[in-house]
Amino acid sequence: MPTASPPAWFVEVAPERRCSIGLEIRRIVHHERSSYQDITVYETADHGRLLVLDGCIMLTERDEFVYHEMLAHPALMSHTAPARVVIVGGGDGGTLREVARHTAVDSIVQVEIDERVSAVARTHLPALASAFDDPRVRLVFADAVAWMRAAPRASADVILIDSTDPVGPAAGLFASEFLGDCRRVLAPDGILAMQSESPILYPELVRLVHRHLAEAGFAGRALLPFSQPTYPSGTWSVSLARTQGSPVRRRAVPELPTRYYSPEHHDALLAGLPRCYRELLENGGEEGYS
Amino acid sequence: MPTASPPAWFVEVAPERRCSIGLEIRRIVHHERSSYQDITVYETADHGRLLVLDGCIMLTERDEFVYHEMLAHPALMSHTAPARVVIVGGGDGGTLREVARHTAVDSIVQVEIDERVSAVARTHLPALASAFDDPRVRLVFADAVAWMRAAPRASADVILIDSTDPVGPAAGLFASEFLGDCRRVLAPDGILAMQSESPILYPELVRLVHRHLAEAGFAGRALLPFSQPTYPSGTWSVSLARTQGSPVRRRAVPELPTRYYSPEHHDALLAGLPRCYRELLENGGEEGYS
Repeated sequence: MPTASPPAWFVEVAPERRCSIGLEIRRIVHHERSSYQDITVYETADHGRLLVLDGCIMLTERDEFVYHEMLAHPALMSHTAPARVVIVGGGDGGTLREVARHTAVDSIVQVEIDERVSAVARTHLPALASAFDDPRVRLVFADAVAWMRAAPRASADVILIDSTDPVGPAAGLFASEFLGDCRRVLAPDGILAMQSESPILYPELVRLVHRHLAEAGFAGRALLPFSQPTYPSGTWSVSLARTQGSPVRRRAVPELPTRYYSPEHHDALLAGLPRCYRELLENGGEEGYS
Repeated sequence: MPTASPPAWFVEVAPERRCSIGLEIRRIVHHERSSYQDITVYETADHGRLLVLDGCIMLTERDEFVYHEMLAHPALMSHTAPARVVIVGGGDGGTLREVARHTAVDSIVQVEIDERVSAVARTHLPALASAFDDPRVRLVFADAVAWMRAAPRASADVILIDSTDPVGPAAGLFASEFLGDCRRVLAPDGILAMQSESPILYPELVRLVHRHLAEAGFAGRALLPFSQPTYPSGTWSVSLARTQGSPVRRRAVPELPTRYYSPEHHDALLAGLPRCYRELLENGGEEGYS
């Protein structure tokens, strides 16, 4: 039976660009205020469940695979032996799920500040939380900035930074100080990947990320843009960096059950970006969309 | 002085997917009802002017360069001697502007059904309409389906189909009959490019386009997805087809003053698409986003 009430929409506005993205919702599945943020799970009309933190869309079940594949697989495929992986943030479990697909991975430490995000994912987003109980996984609920500062030198092969936007709890994860700690924790030939926001809406932020990565001593760097239809602008990015050598390139060739990532696309991204994205990595380049 | 009235938004809903995209607007610059459609030009808060036809976003001044570059340049760069170009639709002039950048082009015929779109662009979107008076250009205001049926065999080197969505006036431009006429009008080794909608929201339509291109006798085909932040889902596509030989590949190397297109990105798109886009071109493949 159709209800008499009009459809409800969740709308996220990108205030700097005066644009918005909306999803029709059926109902609120869960809502709470944790110690760190507002956590809401909605049931949408056509995108499965929707996780919103502090008013920002984190994921929908329909398209989360793109973001999580692109954060995990390019980094892991760029390392010949990615045995020890650290995930920063990523409380929903989606990145962890993709990392766990790699048989070369022996241990995964996930450092998430907000235990409630993972608890909510376990209950309300089971497709995301599928690897929480993998025996290789250790879940640490702590401030990743302090954790990384205290972590031993050369104790990780791959670090994946799956953060929220660089405001509030995640601001420190974009700082060159934190990235410098990541570099110290990475073993020689280590790889770091971090979500680096929309190259369309926030080109100045992508530039900043790459400046901070360079300041932190990462020699080879790359920008990997991808389609993310439920993030503002519809295009998002991951930035990839290596402790030494340059450029970042694909080395491993395992077969993975991916839907967006492919080894051929990985190579293609490194070979030829759209001009306005490539110029974000060059000093003094034009900002394509501004 | 800030005004007392709340901000106004133009919101386009993708009804099949229950999602929306919105732009804050300052004022209506122009509105009319032509013989074919409703035409509105808005001034937005951050995207320059916005052209809307029948409630659908056609372009904003901020990001139109991506669509128009990606419709024009891959096709022209895939032909060694693109002397004779036909543009189907494209009344706003943006595609024409990009085609006119190619010195190898001797003649451009633009066949647009609605003269009012071009008149509105001349007055209200001058950055789009900059090539209307190029001496190589002939503007024909007519139904492109009938025009193409009557056009001489092998009279064009490149055909670019810059249509609205496949409903209303543009429905016939996606049919295999029309595409068969295009093939007949193309000289040997001719290239066709057409806007082929969002591979995320309308994967079945992308499949249909490629089936129709194959039925029309186009041997080599390619799908070129690109970022288009003000179209639904934020990712749009152009489909490229050659009358003979396969695959479509880049052949020309002119230097162009582009902002999104680059020869390296052109080659990269042909070398490695994301898996869910590549599978749209294969029979029986999974639909990545559905």
